[in-house]
Amino acid sequence: MDNSKIGHHISGQFNKELEDVRNKVLTMGGVVEHQIKLAVLAFTTGDLEMAEIAIKLASEVDQLEVDIDKECMQILAMRQPAAFDLRMLIAVIKIIDELEGIGDLAERIAKITIQLTNPKSGKHDQYFELEHMAQLVQGMLHDALDIFARMDLADIASITSLDKNVDREYSSVLRQLSLKMMESPNNVHRMLDVISLARALERIGDLACNLCEHLVYMFKGEDVRHLTQAELERKLN
Amino acid sequence: MDNSKIGHHISGQFNKELEDVRNKVLTMGGVVEHQIKLAVLAFTTGDLEMAEIAIKLASEVDQLEVDIDKECMQILAMRQPAAFDLRMLIAVIKIIDELEGIGDLAERIAKITIQLTNPKSGKHDQYFELEHMAQLVQGMLHDALDIFARMDLADIASITSLDKNVDREYSSVLRQLSLKMMESPNNVHRMLDVISLARALERIGDLACNLCEHLVYMFKGEDVRHLTQAELERKLN
Repeated sequence: MDNSKIGHHISGQFNKELEDVRNKVLTMGGVVEHQIKLAVLAFTTGDLEMAEIAIKLASEVDQLEVDIDKECMQILAMRQPAAFDLRMLIAVIKIIDELEGIGDLAERIAKITIQLTNPKSGKHDQYFELEHMAQLVQGMLHDALDIFARMDLADIASITSLDKNVDREYSSVLRQLSLKMMESPNNVHRMLDVISLARALERIGDLACNLCEHLVYMFKGEDVRHLTQAELERKLN
Repeated sequence: MDNSKIGHHISGQFNKELEDVRNKVLTMGGVVEHQIKLAVLAFTTGDLEMAEIAIKLASEVDQLEVDIDKECMQILAMRQPAAFDLRMLIAVIKIIDELEGIGDLAERIAKITIQLTNPKSGKHDQYFELEHMAQLVQGMLHDALDIFARMDLADIASITSLDKNVDREYSSVLRQLSLKMMESPNNVHRMLDVISLARALERIGDLACNLCEHLVYMFKGEDVRHLTQAELERKLN
């Protein structure tokens, strides 16, 4: 599958409209990726300026969601698209909702980081498992957006297959943090914040998987939500 | 605004299709409401059979989501609707996504309840604040579905205004539970489960508010996501 899929309309204006929607989704995806990167870096380095920028980017993400949604509705009303174009527009409406959700979670991570970090030393405890979880979910989102950019569904099942690793790491983080709470009850508040942060990362993995499901629908016209990973792989082969 | 809004098409078949979608959304909403009710009752009474039924209903909710989504896409492709009909179909696609999310959270509450409850005595600690939170969010969802059923937007801002109460109760529950953890560190695991349950209730409130935003879009064609409660109220007056 290649870009020519959306380049076959008699109306050049219609082509331009679809191309514009596609570009805006990629822009929105880029901003959300940047938001997560900043939020995670703020957490690992203690640089709270990055956390502040991640929080500020939220309004840009919200505005892009509203704009793209409006554009999709206008195209649906004016062009009455069918087949791939219709599926693309409906998939885009769902994809930007996932992206907005991911942006919210990045904002959440940035806010928790500010709470956790000592403003004088810029330090807090290190959590290597969280850094690894963050790398995993950032990779999943990046690869999902790459599929949308390249219009090629090839690697989708390898993205969704990573979610079980994310879930496993989340469970492990949860176990370690509950042990720490039992050992030093005075740290309960901080530990609860770290758990919220881990939970936000785990949710980003879930939403990246939802995004993949919308991409499958867009390209193949098949609703693969609520399938297991094995069922999804069978469906795509 | 009344039911006649979707009764003005020359094609009787088209009317029937829209009416069918509407009825299925109400059915789905009913199943999800039932799921929450069972999950919450299981928690308050310790009757685990109810929790099991709430979990089993999840597949019914998933199937309804897939079916309604497919029906909306078929109508979009075949009927090329405009104005209110187009907005209703797109709003429905978003509303069933929120309902499915709420169903997931109800399932989560049921599963946590099973973990928390002593299978012999059917007992666990009482958490009156949680019961009150549960009542609040159940009311919000019920009233939002009622607006969809009656096709009358009147009370929408009074539903979304309740979300700050839900958030306040959630914060209060969180404070109490962290105190309990500090006092008896051996209970950390159970307390973390109760926090997850409270968090699920808080999220149901959020998703009920999202549902309200989709209803405003459907009836008024205005995108009110990302507005504050005060901005929303100004917009609706």
